[in-house]
Amino acid sequence: VVTGASGFIGHHTLLPLLQAGFEVHALSRRPSGEIRAEGLSYHTADLLDQVATSAVIRTIKPTHLLHLAWYVEPGMYWASLNNLSWVAASLALFRTFLEAGGRRAVFAGTCAEYDWSHEKLSEYATPLRSNTLYGRAKNALRELIEEAGTISDTSTAWGRIFYLYGPREPRGRLVSDAFNLLLKGQKLATTLGYQQRDFMHVADVGAAFAAVICSDVAGAINVASGRCVAVRQIVEMIGRLTDRMDLIEFGARASNPNEPLQLTADVARLTHEVGFTPKIPLEEGLADTLDWWSKAMVSEGATRPTLKS
Amino acid sequence: VVTGASGFIGHHTLLPLLQAGFEVHALSRRPSGEIRAEGLSYHTADLLDQVATSAVIRTIKPTHLLHLAWYVEPGMYWASLNNLSWVAASLALFRTFLEAGGRRAVFAGTCAEYDWSHEKLSEYATPLRSNTLYGRAKNALRELIEEAGTISDTSTAWGRIFYLYGPREPRGRLVSDAFNLLLKGQKLATTLGYQQRDFMHVADVGAAFAAVICSDVAGAINVASGRCVAVRQIVEMIGRLTDRMDLIEFGARASNPNEPLQLTADVARLTHEVGFTPKIPLEEGLADTLDWWSKAMVSEGATRPTLKS
Repeated sequence: VVTGASGFIGHHTLLPLLQAGFEVHALSRRPSGEIRAEGLSYHTADLLDQVATSAVIRTIKPTHLLHLAWYVEPGMYWASLNNLSWVAASLALFRTFLEAGGRRAVFAGTCAEYDWSHEKLSEYATPLRSNTLYGRAKNALRELIEEAGTISDTSTAWGRIFYLYGPREPRGRLVSDAFNLLLKGQKLATTLGYQQRDFMHVADVGAAFAAVICSDVAGAINVASGRCVAVRQIVEMIGRLTDRMDLIEFGARASNPNEPLQLTADVARLTHEVGFTPKIPLEEGLADTLDWWSKAMVSEGATRPTLKS
Repeated sequence: VVTGASGFIGHHTLLPLLQAGFEVHALSRRPSGEIRAEGLSYHTADLLDQVATSAVIRTIKPTHLLHLAWYVEPGMYWASLNNLSWVAASLALFRTFLEAGGRRAVFAGTCAEYDWSHEKLSEYATPLRSNTLYGRAKNALRELIEEAGTISDTSTAWGRIFYLYGPREPRGRLVSDAFNLLLKGQKLATTLGYQQRDFMHVADVGAAFAAVICSDVAGAINVASGRCVAVRQIVEMIGRLTDRMDLIEFGARASNPNEPLQLTADVARLTHEVGFTPKIPLEEGLADTLDWWSKAMVSEGATRPTLKS
């Protein structure tokens, strides 16, 4: 069972999981079904409705659970009380999964669990000290599923997601907003962009989660590329791809003083223990994302992309 | 609102809260009402039923919340998956309380949140590293309510309960079992009892929680006496009080190798910041407990206490 299966990451896990040989049950709040394939079925349930969710899990009796769903409204999710409800919903889901005989569960964590005053974020060495409710909620949940898994003889792992981009990214985030504004011929007010982040294409993130659930690696695993890139460099690449460098205003927005200059993931666990390496270089991934946004905007009947000729 | 109001500790908070001037709403799963007093009303709701609980909280609109309810089945609660459900229920309760305009919440925590390899357990200095699901669940909940409280401008505190005893203690615990067996003339198989613990009479624990909620002290607070006593000493006192020393078999049960020899609470916060000092010395508290058990066994129509001679 994959929760959040119609979401940004969830969508990109389904084919890798099918390729790994799983019978895949995609669970999401709203009816979905964009991908059609042998071995893939869709289920609709709101995870915040514990009765409905329990009924689905008890019917499917999954051996494996990939829990990606969460409240991720851009700008809002850091401090929303919805984080409390998602911890509660996730605990109820996990308990039902354990009681239905589940064998291995992988949950989506976040780099926001770490103390960001450290430059290199390592599963073994970096203290977990988030100053956001979102980061604390994820970390609290991790502590609980790890111990409950041990007690129930069920294997668990926790994929800490860093920064990502790619097709189907919701608006309100760096890359999706940049493409949208520039393709619509609107100005893009951004920071100076010297902060460096670890970005990974969402298809690689999806494939990484599939690799993690296929492995028997336990505990927290950074799901990231291990390579840092300046936000400015990404925005410039998007400017060049859309040929709208003229619309970009670096420094028009202030950087968030609470955000560190650099966040790098130590990816030794993902690379050597899980055996996963991302496949999509940044240039190629951004070109792929441009392609998707261009098509999406045309099919939506929205403003036709205005590429300068 | 007091949750778990008919429980071992909850029962002993009601009068101190009334004396402090609160309008007290006692919430419990089963209808209660043993104490009758002006300003005290009873409500029945199962906290695991979030819909029913929300309805009660929204009706009362409490300014203060004292959340004591949890799954505490002796011997079972350390590793039970019910801990997950109680975290979930507590988060739902707290969210409803915040959204109904709550101003201050105090939750029951536990000394089991601490790393027990440390001898003196201090809120500021001792690492929080529980190897039980119960301890982890409480600590995870604390992290979340603290941050959610800060975001919502609602004051929170977390009373870490140590060892306690007194009237109405459920069977399956040291003092209640000792009184029960000895009063019934049955043998009491116990450990050598050299392990030292911090014991507090439940009426003092109840009064301490009332003092904490009346204060504006935030964060974790040890609710304990600060004095250690050997378990053997307590059992011997019970043997003398019941005049059944002959029935006690020290060393007939092995000590739990995972439990440390000594657990002492640092009570500086409770003493100096909250301004609370326990009133009931151990001898007096045990005599009081004997009195209660004697009456309870008679009124239950159970075996009449067999005091020798």
